[in-house]
Amino acid sequence: MVSLIAIYKTPEDQAAFDSHYNDVHSPLAAKMEGLRKMEVFRMNKMLTPPNSMLAEGPYLMCVMYFDNQEALDKSMASESGRAAAKDLRGFAGQLVSMVTAEVSEAAI
Amino acid sequence: MVSLIAIYKTPEDQAAFDSHYNDVHSPLAAKMEGLRKMEVFRMNKMLTPPNSMLAEGPYLMCVMYFDNQEALDKSMASESGRAAAKDLRGFAGQLVSMVTAEVSEAAI
Repeated sequence: MVSLIAIYKTPEDQAAFDSHYNDVHSPLAAKMEGLRKMEVFRMNKMLTPPNSMLAEGPYLMCVMYFDNQEALDKSMASESGRAAAKDLRGFAGQLVSMVTAEVSEAAI
Repeated sequence: MVSLIAIYKTPEDQAAFDSHYNDVHSPLAAKMEGLRKMEVFRMNKMLTPPNSMLAEGPYLMCVMYFDNQEALDKSMASESGRAAAKDLRGFAGQLVSMVTAEVSEAAI
């Protein structure tokens, strides 16, 4: 599986961010075609000091799972993907970092 | 559920990092008591410019799931948790950022 990961820095107005994220953005993202699973991580505490990659603890992270890179690319280029991206730029363009990844579940 | 998230910056020696991560660290982390699930994300591509929180694309991320904060705290304080933490400090103390979070799965 591959994932699209969005990591948000802490917004100035957390209440406004939360409201838009929960009521508008998250439902739009959840409609992206080919999406298999979506998890939202509300960050509690950074346990390590800042370093040269991560200067502060993130505020929120969303991980979206797709079957493979082709499905992710197709989803991002689709109408549902473009609608989510447009909304994202509008409310969090300066806050968000997006990364793609290969995901594997470890045996425990 | 709560999660313990480890985000690694790109190591200088990727082959040495991968070898230690796959053969030593990941199995140690997977033995942590109370662990319900563990996923490893090998990052492909950062889609957004660096910002004041994330200066560059991460190299790898591991997300570990526990029933609740108490289970996570107990696991980190346990012998298995201390062994994983000790190993982490040894091979990636300068590379890793760790954050705790509340996780929820979005309806899609």
